[in-house]
Amino acid sequence: MKSKMVKNALGRKVPVEVNGETVIPFKGVGKHRPRGKQHAPRISTAIDYPNDGNKCVDSLATALKKASISNNMTISTHHHLRNGDYVANQVFEFASKLGIKNLTWLPSASFPCHEPIIEQLKDGTINHIEGSMNGPLGKFTSEGKMKGIGVLRSHGGRYQAIQDGEVKIDIAVLAAPTADPFGNAHGLDGPSSCGGLGYALPDYKFADKVIVVTDNLVDFPAMPMHIEGNYVDYVVEVDKIGDHNKIVSGTTRITRSPDRLLIAEYTARFCKEAGIIRDGFSFQMGAGGISLAVADFFHKIMKDERVKARFAIGGTTQYAVRMLEEGYLEYLLDAQTFDLEAVDSMRRNRNHRNISIFHAYDYHSKGFFNQMIDVLTLGATEVDVNFNGNVNTHSDGYLLHGIGGWQNCLFAKCTILPIPLFRNRIPIIKDEVTTVTGPGKLIDVIVTERGIAINPRRQDLLDKVKDSDLPIRDIHELKEEAEKICGKPAKPQLEDNVVAIIKWVDGTVIDAVGQVKLE
Amino acid sequence: MKSKMVKNALGRKVPVEVNGETVIPFKGVGKHRPRGKQHAPRISTAIDYPNDGNKCVDSLATALKKASISNNMTISTHHHLRNGDYVANQVFEFASKLGIKNLTWLPSASFPCHEPIIEQLKDGTINHIEGSMNGPLGKFTSEGKMKGIGVLRSHGGRYQAIQDGEVKIDIAVLAAPTADPFGNAHGLDGPSSCGGLGYALPDYKFADKVIVVTDNLVDFPAMPMHIEGNYVDYVVEVDKIGDHNKIVSGTTRITRSPDRLLIAEYTARFCKEAGIIRDGFSFQMGAGGISLAVADFFHKIMKDERVKARFAIGGTTQYAVRMLEEGYLEYLLDAQTFDLEAVDSMRRNRNHRNISIFHAYDYHSKGFFNQMIDVLTLGATEVDVNFNGNVNTHSDGYLLHGIGGWQNCLFAKCTILPIPLFRNRIPIIKDEVTTVTGPGKLIDVIVTERGIAINPRRQDLLDKVKDSDLPIRDIHELKEEAEKICGKPAKPQLEDNVVAIIKWVDGTVIDAVGQVKLE
Repeated sequence: MKSKMVKNALGRKVPVEVNGETVIPFKGVGKHRPRGKQHAPRISTAIDYPNDGNKCVDSLATALKKASISNNMTISTHHHLRNGDYVANQVFEFASKLGIKNLTWLPSASFPCHEPIIEQLKDGTINHIEGSMNGPLGKFTSEGKMKGIGVLRSHGGRYQAIQDGEVKIDIAVLAAPTADPFGNAHGLDGPSSCGGLGYALPDYKFADKVIVVTDNLVDFPAMPMHIEGNYVDYVVEVDKIGDHNKIVSGTTRITRSPDRLLIAEYTARFCKEAGIIRDGFSFQMGAGGISLAVADFFHKIMKDERVKARFAIGGTTQYAVRMLEEGYLEYLLDAQTFDLEAVDSMRRNRNHRNISIFHAYDYHSKGFFNQMIDVLTLGATEVDVNFNGNVNTHSDGYLLHGIGGWQNCLFAKCTILPIPLFRNRIPIIKDEVTTVTGPGKLIDVIVTERGIAINPRRQDLLDKVKDSDLPIRDIHELKEEAEKICGKPAKPQLEDNVVAIIKWVDGTVIDAVGQVKLE
Repeated sequence: MKSKMVKNALGRKVPVEVNGETVIPFKGVGKHRPRGKQHAPRISTAIDYPNDGNKCVDSLATALKKASISNNMTISTHHHLRNGDYVANQVFEFASKLGIKNLTWLPSASFPCHEPIIEQLKDGTINHIEGSMNGPLGKFTSEGKMKGIGVLRSHGGRYQAIQDGEVKIDIAVLAAPTADPFGNAHGLDGPSSCGGLGYALPDYKFADKVIVVTDNLVDFPAMPMHIEGNYVDYVVEVDKIGDHNKIVSGTTRITRSPDRLLIAEYTARFCKEAGIIRDGFSFQMGAGGISLAVADFFHKIMKDERVKARFAIGGTTQYAVRMLEEGYLEYLLDAQTFDLEAVDSMRRNRNHRNISIFHAYDYHSKGFFNQMIDVLTLGATEVDVNFNGNVNTHSDGYLLHGIGGWQNCLFAKCTILPIPLFRNRIPIIKDEVTTVTGPGKLIDVIVTERGIAINPRRQDLLDKVKDSDLPIRDIHELKEEAEKICGKPAKPQLEDNVVAIIKWVDGTVIDAVGQVKLE
């Protein structure tokens, strides 16, 4: 059933109905005002739970049955074990065995390790995914093979959607590196320790039933409470919840490419010249080879200038930990732990603090941490001459990446995209991006190996660096230079129908992703 | 307007309507099953909050005006500064100046320092108090001078009522020893440091508007987040939020009375003989001279027997801190910090953990921590031969104490009341208590200086100590012995009308308090 399509405030054609639900087209940044009340969970009573607080059941299958898994439910998981997660696949394999149909999977992110879930997408166990569709799942979706329409949300948008009742979780299945029989859990200890579990917050707070799955069951109390047992229905002990070595991916090391190192250096120099790197400033530390290189340059500048940052929000890695330990950073606020050095730091260091995605990113709260960040770097698959950014699709139209925190991060005081001018001889700067993940209004600076383009809306930044020797250039010039080298890229060949939508941080639809035409 | 009265499951006469709202009579322990959904706060949006995260306004008066303080609102405060709080009085003094009428004050507890609020109860600014009415406020209430009917709830019951939407907070005014301009706050540092702020959790999570008042404003981020800034509307910096020396009260030192020390010793010996003090056990550490003496005896037994406790929940004091530091206690879970040594410990010691009242006590959650406690001691103003306990009224009928966590604590595996047989020549064990705060079903042991009475429902405990030389006696015998010494106490002289109701942990009405007859 095809939905009517309308043009949203960015001129992008989007459906008004998705998977049988009415959706609201994007109205512009800060234009959509939510109405009504948050999702209200059912009132529980201790009468229904064991007097001795022991909620252990013998297997994940038992827990799912006790939670009354059935057709049409929404099942959520978190992604703190990243590409090493063993739990999500088991849930849907079991659901398939039971003959359950038409589930919605609501992961906080998916990874290549979740490729087996394609089987349950094919056999009808899962209708569609709301979350990220990375790699194999994205390709499957792009080719029009998923039954329902995919819904992509930013990390903060996922919290917003659950909080606002846009999506209701029937069962949350939460992997926990350490847990007690009451359901308190954290990610700091145990054979699968992976750091904070802040993405699980909306799941356990708002889900009807909550299952904690652990491979390190300890006596009450498991502390700190990254997951609060008062919200938990069942606890399951299993052999292994995942392989925590795989929380480290290729994107958690500094780039070695000379071009990319140059981009990182320009970015750091830009921040220095613009007066952003000063005592008490704040920055975001993401993963990604260039971002990490930028942070490393920041570190050097801070050492040289004897400047100390007040806080960084991460995505934390060994690089951020080093800054914290050397005293160049007072607080490291961690919503996602990207390597085992960072896991260890969070365990040891009081100023390395676990925060949730609610704190960092929820647009439907009374402000959020990310707004207070002075400078932040992000990747992109494409940008356009209006500074709109795309992180979801490639220029061939394939949906291969989730949004992550990308949209939420755009609300920092200065947002920089350090990106190469082209990748595999395909220019990155376009007349129009294949998919708008975030509006140009919020993207301040694009740094390439051949020059820096500043958004004309940011006259203040243009003024600050006008006397520097940085290669400040017009974005159109950069685009043309890339096209001279690589040629003008072909437009993606797409079918008429929508396979996924991209939600904005306020729950409105900023863009739709079309099915790719197969040869 | 008088409500119809009915007899509840304990045979106590209670009203069916209070302050214009229907209430449910107590049905028995574990008999009332809540229906419906939790209170759903309005969906907020970051659009309405400062982009830079700075929510500071110039005064408490400005914040209250911006929060649109008006007639008939419910205003809440927390009691972590105990008898040293300077904030609550200011709120109502200001409301009175504005001519606001008919407010409900919802403190997590009141103290003698709040006596000035009697003025606002008299002038109509405040209609009634829902919370504890200690000392002067209790006397005022007992004498029928409060306009509305007081509603007393346990600490856990307050969380339950706010969570369930039984009471809706319009404005929460939260004193914070340290806060940042975004509204993150904690109680560990600053001139008024008072430890955890866990009682404020329902206030900031469920209130419509949240005001943080601090005398130690620091740069973002104030960590740890005992109060989460994402829920906060305004931040006010003032000279002084309170005097933290007054968090220590007479009840936070070990008793020196020989009789009471004997009671404490019997209690500890009973726990030893009953096999409760064993490796990995858990106990509650309250304040109160006898409770602290019991803990001190526990400490000695643990040293002698080389036994280590897994956790204690407090009300924490220097005594608990010492056990933690000497290694006799693995985790100290702290919902309320009773002295400055404990504040310091929470700041330093990772195993001294801040928990909220939700975690410890909420009966309308999926279980609560207190259920897992092996043994716990509590005070009482009266008990009766059916083991019902009273902590609210004295035998002259005066309402002088709040419930505190008392009702919630009854759910521990073994609940002991170590109490003197008489006070000021008034026997404590009665045929019937003046007010039932908690049902005898949940009270296991009464320890006096002249013998120990075990609830006949606990045959297991009777069996365990039957061969000991402890003075195990029937509760009727103890009552008669006291009456032989002091005479049978007079019944309180009460008017017909109800001045306050006592809610049970599930929101039902367990008893009503009558107005005292004045000579």
